[in-house]
Amino acid sequence: MPDSEKRLIQHIRRLAPVGPTVVRGIGDDCAVIRIPRGHEALITTDFSLEGIHFRRPLHPADSVGHRCLARGLSDIAAMGGDPRAAFLSLAAPRTLPQSWINRFLAGLLGLAKEFAVPLAGGDIAECSAGVLADIAVFGSVPRGRAILRQGAKAGDAIYVTGRLGGSAAVLDKLGSRSKRRFCRGDHVHFYPTPRVSIGRYLREHRLATSMIDISDGLSTDLGHICDESQVGAVITAAQIPLAQLGNERRRVDLSFALYGGEDYELLFTSRQGQRVPARILGVPITRVGEVVRPRGMRLILSGGRMRQLWPKGWQHFSPGVGR
Amino acid sequence: MPDSEKRLIQHIRRLAPVGPTVVRGIGDDCAVIRIPRGHEALITTDFSLEGIHFRRPLHPADSVGHRCLARGLSDIAAMGGDPRAAFLSLAAPRTLPQSWINRFLAGLLGLAKEFAVPLAGGDIAECSAGVLADIAVFGSVPRGRAILRQGAKAGDAIYVTGRLGGSAAVLDKLGSRSKRRFCRGDHVHFYPTPRVSIGRYLREHRLATSMIDISDGLSTDLGHICDESQVGAVITAAQIPLAQLGNERRRVDLSFALYGGEDYELLFTSRQGQRVPARILGVPITRVGEVVRPRGMRLILSGGRMRQLWPKGWQHFSPGVGR
Repeated sequence: MPDSEKRLIQHIRRLAPVGPTVVRGIGDDCAVIRIPRGHEALITTDFSLEGIHFRRPLHPADSVGHRCLARGLSDIAAMGGDPRAAFLSLAAPRTLPQSWINRFLAGLLGLAKEFAVPLAGGDIAECSAGVLADIAVFGSVPRGRAILRQGAKAGDAIYVTGRLGGSAAVLDKLGSRSKRRFCRGDHVHFYPTPRVSIGRYLREHRLATSMIDISDGLSTDLGHICDESQVGAVITAAQIPLAQLGNERRRVDLSFALYGGEDYELLFTSRQGQRVPARILGVPITRVGEVVRPRGMRLILSGGRMRQLWPKGWQHFSPGVGR
Repeated sequence: MPDSEKRLIQHIRRLAPVGPTVVRGIGDDCAVIRIPRGHEALITTDFSLEGIHFRRPLHPADSVGHRCLARGLSDIAAMGGDPRAAFLSLAAPRTLPQSWINRFLAGLLGLAKEFAVPLAGGDIAECSAGVLADIAVFGSVPRGRAILRQGAKAGDAIYVTGRLGGSAAVLDKLGSRSKRRFCRGDHVHFYPTPRVSIGRYLREHRLATSMIDISDGLSTDLGHICDESQVGAVITAAQIPLAQLGNERRRVDLSFALYGGEDYELLFTSRQGQRVPARILGVPITRVGEVVRPRGMRLILSGGRMRQLWPKGWQHFSPGVGR
């Protein structure tokens, strides 16, 4: 390992103190993590690849770091879990300025601090092709209480947290510009808030029969719930809470909510007749449809027309390249 | 996510059945893993990057998959832990033949089966620059019993498992050839055996005060033990068990053992006076030196000469690029 990588690891180690759950963090063959008695472990890994998940000319380095960890935290949230430690594998070109890495780490560790998730390990390598990050987040949940994608039953109501489509709408607006010029509303794309507290609330109050985070658009992620639960769904377009950007009055197009990615809101189902609060921890919770027996997804449009809803993800940067 | 990636995930899911420890594997936001009562979690992540950790013209695809997982299992072994699940993040060019991916997975899942470690999740993406894999391995160890790098005390004896330098010697021999032509002895480089059972034995019999796996050469990895334990070490060159390749009588050069990587043997220290078996589970265990109070590492050469030993890693493919 060259000295530059050693220095980077030492740097990260200084920035990333161990907490009570991390018995041993960076500096050993493995991290050693304590989980509460009676809990099961949760693990998720997510790539953040330059040119696919972000573009260096468009995304500030701290946003790349923030979003990298947000992807993992959002997956823990979607299980109703408590995040306990994060692991960063980072490959970067030798020519990448140290200042970029510092700001990337500041973004990642800022979010880590907010959620009390220590950075407990990872790997460093050189890669001439660009910046490649892979985040692993480790969490836990009381035994048997993880909220899976497969628990939805016909008759359940379908809910989403927050507002949808904002992230993709921002990207659509900015994507064609050569220079960065951000507005206040662009925050939803660059610095999304993973819904960890809401996921935990839903688990603790046993409100959700199935759950997923909306990282690939409502149509795709609802499709996953339907596939895993072997059910269908009917969604009412007018019920979908569409994002507004900054001071703009207009709401974003429905297509951004259905097919846009990276909203990092939660989509969950709740038993028929279950009372679900209109707000949880200050975030609006909106009923958007119902789980039905016949497979497939249907969208009710204004005037009562109904059409098939196909799971279709948004292709941000390279058509045909998956996120 | 494009259909090709979905198909690949379905393919992996069919190949990777869940076991009793994996409550929920591929197909949800997170994997849910059960660990035994009174255990702590172990987590390690390791890159396997084309051009840095392997070269497609040289390494058969199943060897790349095997070595990818072996890196992670070896880290679990070095803690004295039990591996419980693996997570693969794989980015590959769209032009990569499906047959290459199938053989890569066959190599990885073959080793996973041997160690009863289900593949429980991961991520898939496209990357035009080459094949990039990041493996995360999750394991567990009874509470407080993980064997860390930091437990070595002055007076402890230093041991290694197996024989060293074989992997780097094979690479040195083959690296300059344009065509693959393998011999029997080349197996140590292409299909290394992580020493999970020996690590577990050492933990169960409380034989090791500190431990690390030899992935970057004896000098570098002993250096890590010395740094973390704040001690020095004296190694006797003539005691280092050097690998022989296949039917060759000659042992590999000492430099491959000191500075070559990827032997995936274990290096551990044992209390003064502790009886350590000459073989554990059929693998030779060799005493190579002693832990001393003054910092720094020293090598005793033939004739009793002594020189400083500097931690120096092997640069396989690109001089100056870390492994």
